[in-house]
Amino acid sequence: MEKLGKLYEGKAKKLYATNDPDVLWVEYMNQATAGNGAKKAQIQGKGELNNRITTLIFKLLDKRGIPSHFIKQISDNEQLVRKMTMFPLEIIMRNVAAGSFSKRYGVAEGSELKQPILEFCYKSDELGDPFVNDDDILALGLATREQLELISAKTREINLALIDIFKAIGVHLIDFKIEMGTTSDGTILLADEITPDTCRLWNANADGSIEHLDKDLFRRDLGNIIPAYEDICGRLEDLAKSKGID
Amino acid sequence: MEKLGKLYEGKAKKLYATNDPDVLWVEYMNQATAGNGAKKAQIQGKGELNNRITTLIFKLLDKRGIPSHFIKQISDNEQLVRKMTMFPLEIIMRNVAAGSFSKRYGVAEGSELKQPILEFCYKSDELGDPFVNDDDILALGLATREQLELISAKTREINLALIDIFKAIGVHLIDFKIEMGTTSDGTILLADEITPDTCRLWNANADGSIEHLDKDLFRRDLGNIIPAYEDICGRLEDLAKSKGID
Repeated sequence: MEKLGKLYEGKAKKLYATNDPDVLWVEYMNQATAGNGAKKAQIQGKGELNNRITTLIFKLLDKRGIPSHFIKQISDNEQLVRKMTMFPLEIIMRNVAAGSFSKRYGVAEGSELKQPILEFCYKSDELGDPFVNDDDILALGLATREQLELISAKTREINLALIDIFKAIGVHLIDFKIEMGTTSDGTILLADEITPDTCRLWNANADGSIEHLDKDLFRRDLGNIIPAYEDICGRLEDLAKSKGID
Repeated sequence: MEKLGKLYEGKAKKLYATNDPDVLWVEYMNQATAGNGAKKAQIQGKGELNNRITTLIFKLLDKRGIPSHFIKQISDNEQLVRKMTMFPLEIIMRNVAAGSFSKRYGVAEGSELKQPILEFCYKSDELGDPFVNDDDILALGLATREQLELISAKTREINLALIDIFKAIGVHLIDFKIEMGTTSDGTILLADEITPDTCRLWNANADGSIEHLDKDLFRRDLGNIIPAYEDICGRLEDLAKSKGID
């Protein structure tokens, strides 16, 4: 596989073309951002950890019958993925009130919800990734009704699988953001990444306090993210090994 | 019917109890507000016009088999309505891009949409009436799933009826906001008001320009609302008369 020209540089990853038109080369960067890029830092080791964590999660999901764009990890901070046509949607699933949800609706962080919540934002840096509901998505032509139904069903399925995976490593999955796209034959697949940058992961301490093991450490200046990401990565390595995944 | 103590004073209406526990006495005020109360004015004649307009629309809807909380108009600026337990929801239906939708998604005002859009905001002055999707409504307990399905179906039905009513008076219904509640026996009914304060109504001129016949005249300092509201009221009076409604 040959790495060709850069196609896209996001906040945490660079995407390159390869000599196979169906394959992209992903490089995980050390950059951390928050508040739509308003806060930014270089954090040594973050790229490698996220590359490894998302690799392990994509493999664990695949083992449960949930495929993704992931093909293989090719270096500490690089992986190959299938080229997709992405939906311009941030797909957000919430199990417990936190973050922008808590702020928007005045609900204390950590409050239980009557049911999990699926939310979408329209990916647009210019517009500030505004919230969209199903009708908005259809009327703006961001997905068809059939695609939206599949995206929603798959996301709820992914949520159940991720809750289970994180529970197996002793961590509470509060919420997460994913992205999806379609392959050249129209199949909808999970894409982007699943890492502590894109999930809220809490350790519930015996004294009732919460230990953040995710990017909120950076967003809220609560401490260094690296030990937390290393912790998550190590626990996932053990879980994967126990399931025969390397 | 006897008017008793004031129960609530909103931005455009005052609600009073009556000697019948199932009936409220509504007084339409001359106050106009915009931007969640940031802009405010007293506009002579507005209360009477809105009381008359919403009376005519509720009667026209009732004639089409769509009931509401409306009982009867009792003076120029007063009416009796059924007492309801209100859902804390602003129910918004959009047929054409305009207002906050256009701003939020960067879509030019007047753009056609691929389909009508139903949106909900959680009524809370404190939180700034934030946008909620269906899952948010269920998880926050603002309505049950069955109620939400009924609210949605009824709103789409009301939209079709209102498009038709306004078309009959030569006006284009761009979008509107309604509220619903439940009666003591749990029946979901249309409530609040339907007026040029709560609908965007456009006259399409021959030269392609748009004539606003609604509260955008006030919101955007485009002119006096009274002649526009009088125009809408007069046309609705004629329509109602033609259908045997007085």
